[in-house]
Amino acid sequence: MTKVNESPKSEVTAAVIVIGNEVLSGRTKDANLPFLAERLNQLGIRLREARIVADVEDAIAEAVNQCRDRFDYVFTTGGIGPTHDDITAACVAKAFGAPLIQNPEAVAILEQHYENTDHELNEARLRMANTPQGAELLVNPVSRAPGFRMDNVYVMAGVPRIMQAMFDGFKYTLRGGVVMLSRAVACDVGEGNMAAGLTEIQNDYPNIDVGSYPFFKAGGFGTTIVLRGPDAAELDAAAERVRALMRGLGGDPHDAPT
Amino acid sequence: MTKVNESPKSEVTAAVIVIGNEVLSGRTKDANLPFLAERLNQLGIRLREARIVADVEDAIAEAVNQCRDRFDYVFTTGGIGPTHDDITAACVAKAFGAPLIQNPEAVAILEQHYENTDHELNEARLRMANTPQGAELLVNPVSRAPGFRMDNVYVMAGVPRIMQAMFDGFKYTLRGGVVMLSRAVACDVGEGNMAAGLTEIQNDYPNIDVGSYPFFKAGGFGTTIVLRGPDAAELDAAAERVRALMRGLGGDPHDAPT
Repeated sequence: MTKVNESPKSEVTAAVIVIGNEVLSGRTKDANLPFLAERLNQLGIRLREARIVADVEDAIAEAVNQCRDRFDYVFTTGGIGPTHDDITAACVAKAFGAPLIQNPEAVAILEQHYENTDHELNEARLRMANTPQGAELLVNPVSRAPGFRMDNVYVMAGVPRIMQAMFDGFKYTLRGGVVMLSRAVACDVGEGNMAAGLTEIQNDYPNIDVGSYPFFKAGGFGTTIVLRGPDAAELDAAAERVRALMRGLGGDPHDAPT
Repeated sequence: MTKVNESPKSEVTAAVIVIGNEVLSGRTKDANLPFLAERLNQLGIRLREARIVADVEDAIAEAVNQCRDRFDYVFTTGGIGPTHDDITAACVAKAFGAPLIQNPEAVAILEQHYENTDHELNEARLRMANTPQGAELLVNPVSRAPGFRMDNVYVMAGVPRIMQAMFDGFKYTLRGGVVMLSRAVACDVGEGNMAAGLTEIQNDYPNIDVGSYPFFKAGGFGTTIVLRGPDAAELDAAAERVRALMRGLGGDPHDAPT
């Protein structure tokens, strides 16, 4: 049983840990975080923090431990392949103080897979069967080498289409929370002119997150106000207040992508 | 004097903290981290960690304190505008245990700017003059409202073109380290076949980071090997070892973007 099932509450939180030097060097633009942000939102799980950490054992283990204590779910991406720089399984084992074992179930999956390919299940590929003792495997329908779950920590591949398939395979087992709905209204009034009115709206709707995002583009600038909360009727009422505020300041409000 | 000047060493490290619910909700695809990753690399500063944190005071203050202790430089983006959800200055003040003050130099910059516009320097816009006591301002050539530096923590705007202009304004004052050079070689051999050879190359070149990145695309899959290190001749020698390894496994190596 995972920790999250023992502490039911309406807000379910998560952190994502992206593991890999290639994102920090600027070589790879991470695509996993936007995918997970959207999917978690759909499930009513609040993504509260994301970290991108280098391929350094202590850094990964520490990030895992800080996040698993603080959030209901932790999702990691990257570092579970066959080469020397794939160290995530060893780091998660270290974080949990669990031995790293060759997982027999994972070995069986790899043996079956490589029997049907031109490739050999060599020592390097067998490293992909290593998990912390006590881990539960996560299915990889793309390239077979599994991810794993250790308590509330879900360890996934870094290649986006593998990670996405893994996540979509287990997402129905996650405990969702209240789904946050959103509304967005934009106009060409500067946010500095709207600030006082927005503070009033925020105070009147404590269940709604009122976010103000300035934009700049050819021909001028303006502000998008994004409202997030669990109740559609309340959001509609707050959005109407935002539109009235904008009109009062000479703006012409229009709906915007949330 | 900043902490970084007191502890000279050849490796200079940094962390980036992206502040904002809009990135965690998936609404905004962050563009600041890739920019900073590339620029820091050019300066010989190793970006070791990035965090994306919600607009929550304790979360921001804690991220700032954990990162400023651990890395030579910390760069934050977002949360320094005029509205109620802009709380970065207050959080950094809290992290340092410093009072949040209305910075007279920042007030003067804003007064001068708003005199020349149709907008009023109202109470909301004056919030953009708040800094922790002891902070040094960072010039904003785009929209004037300044960022600030507090010890080794650089606090910048979230709007990419403002953040970029701020960074480019002070980057010459940063102490750079050894610039990391790179080489990348790709071929259609699976990384599981190359793993043993790559481990040997990594062991033979301890000053080089050997990264292995599988790719999947229409028509097949393959691996890109990225080599990073300070010495061009050593990198060229290691790249030649990688090419030989690939050829030995039936691959046709070609250079790839680093």
